[in-house]
Amino acid sequence: MVTLQDVRDAAERIEGFAHRTPVIRSRTLDERVGAQVFLKAENLQRVGAFKIRGAYNAIKQLAPEQLARGIVAYSSGNHAQAVALSARELGSTAVIVMPADTPASKLDAVRGYGAEIVTYDRYTGNREEIGRRLAEERGLALIPPYDHPHIIAGQGTAALELLEETGALDALVVPVGGGGLIAGSATAAKGLQPGIRVIGVEPQAGDDTRRSLAAGERVRIDVPRTIADGQAAPIPGELTFAINRRLVDEIVLVSDDELREAMRFAVDRLKLVMEPSGASGPAALLAGRLNPAPARIGVIISGGNVGAARLAQLLGDGVSPGSTGA
Amino acid sequence: MVTLQDVRDAAERIEGFAHRTPVIRSRTLDERVGAQVFLKAENLQRVGAFKIRGAYNAIKQLAPEQLARGIVAYSSGNHAQAVALSARELGSTAVIVMPADTPASKLDAVRGYGAEIVTYDRYTGNREEIGRRLAEERGLALIPPYDHPHIIAGQGTAALELLEETGALDALVVPVGGGGLIAGSATAAKGLQPGIRVIGVEPQAGDDTRRSLAAGERVRIDVPRTIADGQAAPIPGELTFAINRRLVDEIVLVSDDELREAMRFAVDRLKLVMEPSGASGPAALLAGRLNPAPARIGVIISGGNVGAARLAQLLGDGVSPGSTGA
Repeated sequence: MVTLQDVRDAAERIEGFAHRTPVIRSRTLDERVGAQVFLKAENLQRVGAFKIRGAYNAIKQLAPEQLARGIVAYSSGNHAQAVALSARELGSTAVIVMPADTPASKLDAVRGYGAEIVTYDRYTGNREEIGRRLAEERGLALIPPYDHPHIIAGQGTAALELLEETGALDALVVPVGGGGLIAGSATAAKGLQPGIRVIGVEPQAGDDTRRSLAAGERVRIDVPRTIADGQAAPIPGELTFAINRRLVDEIVLVSDDELREAMRFAVDRLKLVMEPSGASGPAALLAGRLNPAPARIGVIISGGNVGAARLAQLLGDGVSPGSTGA
Repeated sequence: MVTLQDVRDAAERIEGFAHRTPVIRSRTLDERVGAQVFLKAENLQRVGAFKIRGAYNAIKQLAPEQLARGIVAYSSGNHAQAVALSARELGSTAVIVMPADTPASKLDAVRGYGAEIVTYDRYTGNREEIGRRLAEERGLALIPPYDHPHIIAGQGTAALELLEETGALDALVVPVGGGGLIAGSATAAKGLQPGIRVIGVEPQAGDDTRRSLAAGERVRIDVPRTIADGQAAPIPGELTFAINRRLVDEIVLVSDDELREAMRFAVDRLKLVMEPSGASGPAALLAGRLNPAPARIGVIISGGNVGAARLAQLLGDGVSPGSTGA
């Protein structure tokens, strides 16, 4: 599967390319939660999310002749930019399969990293199929968004860095989408500290991993309707589920309102922009989902790509004026 | 006056109380500016601004009997919270003189730190006079917002930490309000690196320090109308001006639109919330005010207390949807 040593090797590979993001503390948050909370700020990562860790770790391990032929990935989100930037950095070329209705700014960002974009109709097209076809026709290496050992090992480096900085923690709280971040994080965390509790957070509408863990097998749900677009996977990955089944202690759920509230708290008190998925860890803590809260809690803030206009919109409802510091 | 050693002593005093804030990098910002830019993120400081450094450094040097009698300060902004929190931490009590129309959330925050609030009418009252009277009547120590050597030395610790982390810089860019932050920063920076250029940033409507430096004496202007409320001082401080006259190389100006644009850039690309004053350094860089830009530039992000609703309002105009990473 994936081991702590794989995560350590990934950490060496990404050094100098990915940022070593800061660990942020807030006494206000500590007081609200009744615990010491350590936020690993992957929203301050390159391309604004942890995704760069896995993408770069995977692409870096391709053979030179494969890098010369190129790479393909499908994603409308942070993985798209992560693959495009990593490919450019490693002297390769990337084709990214994206829905035709992706916001122009995201298309521009991916193009800005030198990638070619192939669009498809979100409602009638099948992105996996398009990706596979491009891979076959052009001899491209497909870099999947989560279900690959190199991706998982790369994502685990965020938890590795966090634990190196904080020392012993009682719990690690990680957002769950396809399950790559938490699979890597749990591998690193339990490898370093076998007694640590690893707790995943899913949006209420997207609880496929929670259901799957309860059922003991992968359960598919309807495509989730949630503001947490980074966590809208309808079914866990095969490999990620096999790992998470073994290493994840618990999954807790948060509502869209709780996500918005956490994003507002992040702006007002932490001065950090978190995308909805990125705020899911703080949302779980602020909503009291860990009760009683363990004494020392690490939380991975997975990303911050929400955009000023969308952020303004999400913060716009029911906010009182003024602000106070953390 | 104030020396590098005073700043070093202040750094020892505040250790363990103030955060050692992270230095944030962004390749997107570097590319836009054509330089290596190092952002000292004092928006992630306790109470959301650098003010805690000076306030704590000043209060910590009071005699025990003075701490027992208490402290008074006047401020509607970040200094109010900084004094209230520092006083509580040091077992003292604070009275804060604030305008009666201060937003409830700010009053609550100051009260939350255990301070007593005395309000006055912003248009007819004189806060300095009220502060002095309270100091005399109750035997309180007045902690001014900038014009005091202990405040200035404390504020200088932000630049000290930044330069310890970055090594040699060509320029240091610092927001200018009353002048305490830049006076302390310039003292630290020129003490460590005599060749460094220290560049202040003022809002166009609040260019009292620029005018004063040009005139060779303190010039009073009309109370500035600008979104940068932290930089709305109508005249430089006496002590801060004496220091800045000696150590500041240049003052550049930014418009409110440029401040808004920089706040938007901070949200979209850096995932950081900056209050308007806090964004004045990036605003100057993005607007090309340093032309040609020196190779390695440090920038102090002074604070992030803007509030979710106000932020949403300031970002609301003319933003394109979607977002991309840094």
